[in-house]
Amino acid sequence: MLSIGIDIGGTKIAAGVVDEEGRIIAQAQRRTPAQDPDLLEQAVADAVRDLRERHPVVAVGIGAAGFVGADRRTVVFAANLNWRDRPLAANVEALVDLPVVVENDANAAGWAEFRFGPAADASNMLMMTVGTGLGGAIVVDGRLLRGAGGFAGEIAHMTAVPDGQWCGCGNRGCLEQYTAGTALVRSVRAAASTGDPLLAPMLAAAGGDVEAIDGPLVTELATAGDPGARRHLAELGSWLGFGAASIAAVLDPEIIVIGGGVSEAGDLLLGPAQDRFAAALTARAHRRLAPFKQASFGNRAGMIGAADLARTDDA
Amino acid sequence: MLSIGIDIGGTKIAAGVVDEEGRIIAQAQRRTPAQDPDLLEQAVADAVRDLRERHPVVAVGIGAAGFVGADRRTVVFAANLNWRDRPLAANVEALVDLPVVVENDANAAGWAEFRFGPAADASNMLMMTVGTGLGGAIVVDGRLLRGAGGFAGEIAHMTAVPDGQWCGCGNRGCLEQYTAGTALVRSVRAAASTGDPLLAPMLAAAGGDVEAIDGPLVTELATAGDPGARRHLAELGSWLGFGAASIAAVLDPEIIVIGGGVSEAGDLLLGPAQDRFAAALTARAHRRLAPFKQASFGNRAGMIGAADLARTDDA
Amino acid sequence: MLSIGIDIGGTKIAAGVVDEEGRIIAQAQRRTPAQDPDLLEQAVADAVRDLRERHPVVAVGIGAAGFVGADRRTVVFAANLNWRDRPLAANVEALVDLPVVVENDANAAGWAEFRFGPAADASNMLMMTVGTGLGGAIVVDGRLLRGAGGFAGEIAHMTAVPDGQWCGCGNRGCLEQYTAGTALVRSVRAAASTGDPLLAPMLAAAGGDVEAIDGPLVTELATAGDPGARRHLAELGSWLGFGAASIAAVLDPEIIVIGGGVSEAGDLLLGPAQDRFAAALTARAHRRLAPFKQASFGNRAGMIGAADLARTDDA
Amino acid sequence: MLSIGIDIGGTKIAAGVVDEEGRIIAQAQRRTPAQDPDLLEQAVADAVRDLRERHPVVAVGIGAAGFVGADRRTVVFAANLNWRDRPLAANVEALVDLPVVVENDANAAGWAEFRFGPAADASNMLMMTVGTGLGGAIVVDGRLLRGAGGFAGEIAHMTAVPDGQWCGCGNRGCLEQYTAGTALVRSVRAAASTGDPLLAPMLAAAGGDVEAIDGPLVTELATAGDPGARRHLAELGSWLGFGAASIAAVLDPEIIVIGGGVSEAGDLLLGPAQDRFAAALTARAHRRLAPFKQASFGNRAGMIGAADLARTDDA
Repeated sequence: MLSIGIDIGGTKIAAGVVDEEGRIIAQAQRRTPAQDPDLLEQAVADAVRDLRERHPVVAVGIGAAGFVGADRRTVVFAANLNWRDRPLAANVEALVDLPVVVENDANAAGWAEFRFGPAADASNMLMMTVGTGLGGAIVVDGRLLRGAGGFAGEIAHMTAVPDGQWCGCGNRGCLEQYTAGTALVRSVRAAASTGDPLLAPMLAAAGGDVEAIDGPLVTELATAGDPGARRHLAELGSWLGFGAASIAAVLDPEIIVIGGGVSEAGDLLLGPAQDRFAAALTARAHRRLAPFKQASFGNRAGMIGAADLARTDDA
Repeated sequence: MLSIGIDIGGTKIAAGVVDEEGRIIAQAQRRTPAQDPDLLEQAVADAVRDLRERHPVVAVGIGAAGFVGADRRTVVFAANLNWRDRPLAANVEALVDLPVVVENDANAAGWAEFRFGPAADASNMLMMTVGTGLGGAIVVDGRLLRGAGGFAGEIAHMTAVPDGQWCGCGNRGCLEQYTAGTALVRSVRAAASTGDPLLAPMLAAAGGDVEAIDGPLVTELATAGDPGARRHLAELGSWLGFGAASIAAVLDPEIIVIGGGVSEAGDLLLGPAQDRFAAALTARAHRRLAPFKQASFGNRAGMIGAADLARTDDA
Repeated sequence: MLSIGIDIGGTKIAAGVVDEEGRIIAQAQRRTPAQDPDLLEQAVADAVRDLRERHPVVAVGIGAAGFVGADRRTVVFAANLNWRDRPLAANVEALVDLPVVVENDANAAGWAEFRFGPAADASNMLMMTVGTGLGGAIVVDGRLLRGAGGFAGEIAHMTAVPDGQWCGCGNRGCLEQYTAGTALVRSVRAAASTGDPLLAPMLAAAGGDVEAIDGPLVTELATAGDPGARRHLAELGSWLGFGAASIAAVLDPEIIVIGGGVSEAGDLLLGPAQDRFAAALTARAHRRLAPFKQASFGNRAGMIGAADLARTDDA
Repeated sequence: MLSIGIDIGGTKIAAGVVDEEGRIIAQAQRRTPAQDPDLLEQAVADAVRDLRERHPVVAVGIGAAGFVGADRRTVVFAANLNWRDRPLAANVEALVDLPVVVENDANAAGWAEFRFGPAADASNMLMMTVGTGLGGAIVVDGRLLRGAGGFAGEIAHMTAVPDGQWCGCGNRGCLEQYTAGTALVRSVRAAASTGDPLLAPMLAAAGGDVEAIDGPLVTELATAGDPGARRHLAELGSWLGFGAASIAAVLDPEIIVIGGGVSEAGDLLLGPAQDRFAAALTARAHRRLAPFKQASFGNRAGMIGAADLARTDDA
């Protein structure tokens, strides 16, 4: 049984035919008409038609950044796409005549890791996606946690530090301000611009321009052994473990999957996260410590998860 | 269909026959033989036999302070009763020949409020029990959240303040250190002992002895209009709302029920909690705000919930 | 005995002849040639010549933003003017043939308030200047506190919140990030942009444009009674009192003078500052509480103080 | 010119004849009659008489824990000795017919280090005394900083962490709660009691009894190379450097002297303090970093400093 998974990003729409083992059989891409919801739905439908011509698919799953209704059919609010209460599933169904489900993109990606990735043997998973921002996906007893209004898993906006760094959400000290790529770059740049000698190699690699330091450069240098890059990645990882311990106090997950671009640093990020988690978790002497695992599917996770969700009733 | 609910406390065992509307039909009590697990199980069995003689019960539910296995049969760890991996359900079943389930006491109490109390119409609930300490119970899509190892809902030990007040759990800044009765009394005593004039009436009511100030006195004076008592209760409520906002970022509950002894202060506690929650919740402009409601069943909630859980397979 | 005080600002040089009671007898202005230190010194000299033609002055005092050497003659580092180790006093003396002393601008302003303003009867003063940023001036036993290298009084960069808001200085949680005009505007804008109803009048007054909200607007509305503006000013004042209590633990000042543009809000700022200070000061039951007083001389303080410092050996 | 220095401790009165190079020529001791101020003054006088019989002394300096008036004659408040507004200098002068000055004990100890110890070449010094609690002494331009009412240098009660650990002073998050021996022992015990394997050697050395862990044991094990003890000492040192950076933002000291019992750990404490200070100090790229130095005189500092203060008018 094949289904199509679609990941609507800010610049491109990635669509793929996915089989029941989570393998991508075929792919198609379209540009994202970000300003026009009608055109966007037509582009999605177009990609679907393209793929189904060659493959017998039974359903379509769409992952989108934003809050999705508990009915899995409506995008309640999507900041980047300027959507409010958009009946995305119904609209696309009308265009392609296939059943469509919609899911928050972080949830879709988390579902892929839960079904086919490092959490495949687990029933309870926390996934933290560390990209520019921080995303979260939670599986409880084999089902995605969506909450009363589809707002569950917004771990980015738990408060990590009262009166801490202002967040774009209007609050202070949100976990995202301490654990995501933006936070990493900010701290590295601050250290570099005050002349921290540990950052001298980084600054040299950025051609002497503090503003040219970015996340991939930090990861690259850390992988190559640079102590400054490693220290800042470890600091980020430590905050990740700190946040995970608070979430685990609520959820008690079996496994913690770390995805997103920054997770490509692997153990340089996950090691310090695991250590801080172990130190901060309550009742740690009496319980099994959830292991931190790197996500498997990179930026294809949203597509794979959305496709699988489309053929799963009880997710 | 009647069942028996049992709440094992530190000093007494409270047992009751509960009907399908959550009403208590009959009750029995025994002292808690806290030092001897065998005697304790016999006392439980004794109370059950006493009650079933007069009422046709089909099952027994036991609520106990401690971590309970996901199978609802074993107490993994109970600090007060000195239990580790105690097969409580099997042991009691052997004595009374009725099916027995075991549940964490905060979960049992939360289940009563979810089934028969202010959350009866909800599918997703957060309950915060504000007694000497802070307890939590979470319902997701109509089922208690237990997590991978039965450790879910330990909201007391989320970190509220990095490097904050030391907690008995060995960490710093745990939410419980800011939101429970002990925290309330500590802050009132500190203010009274440094001569804060707002606390003068409280100190007078305590006979001039700072150490004689306790939680019930604070609630009593607050209810009578005392500004100092009200300010400190409001401060506690504010931290409660702060913590609830971080939990809601993870869970997105439909309703937040506040129980425990301190909740008897009613709106003097719940009002400031609701306000801080509204100010701190992420994406608050785009979602329905979960209301804070006072719990209905007081210290009978554990018994009622345990009884109902005993006849519910899918909880 | 008359002397000339000069306040070098980012856009203009303000010079004045000041008498021994701190009165300004005559004034002159020049544009600030910010890019060229030589031209700037010539402009200063030009203003001095202009004024001394008509008034018998004996000395010149210059206040400049930056770190000034303990010898009161050299600007060690001035970020805005791009100076490093500039022998400003010697250079100007060569041009005007009068004795010249240089002082940090916040110190010069503080000296004016200490000599002729609300602290005229005190020997120990803390002045906090709340403008866009936070400045500090400290008088100990009648003398300006400069420290080993002229870096004393940099109260802006005490840490108020560990892991708090990033500061331009490269650290986190600096007091300035919680107590200055920039912080005020940031918090008001954040609340307005998340739809806080208390900020609706402010947003309306800013023509619906969050970015159009600025410090003077907040002060204006607060003075007119707007609850949202008052709440945010009170919050700023509370942080000011919090910071003052930590500084007072070190210095034990007799009086705390609040200057800078935001201080024009008067008691709306100073009242909450005084309250928080009273609550946070250590050993408060055993000591006199330093009063918070509004500064007297506004943006003329730098000129007046510099002039007076020029004729005072032991300051 | 010889003078007598007296250090009034909780259990004993230590008196010594001190020469102009800070050397102790002769000593005498008496028990402290802590409950009776009259008896205490007589004991002090008795020790003075004893010493002056054999040595030609010109003055007496007394160091006492408590707040001392700016006139250096009156103890305003001493918690341990139950003194309020006690004219100690006048009372002792009446008994011994020698000029007497009184100084806060931390100030007296700081003065010894400033005159004869590691700060002998400096004009501006910060001394932090890390014993059970945290004491402070500050020298500005060669004079002790006493403040308006003798309360300067109370660095223990600057706020390090908003809403942090409760302090006996009635506030939260005081620097002392993070930097003194009590804090060290509390953190080590917490880690040991939650089964941190790094603390296993410490726990073994304490005979398996968490409560038997104390400060000297931590220092002893750290000196012997124990990683757990070193980590906790380094953590304490890091907070010390953090606090010192905030104080240095206010004072800009030339040197920072660390005394008190915990300072016997030497570089194990001072190294991390210096590192954190260097990372946290504002404008660090443009200034000389004050070095951290270990105090020289141990618990004799109070006696030596008090004696020297007795013959120094301008201190």
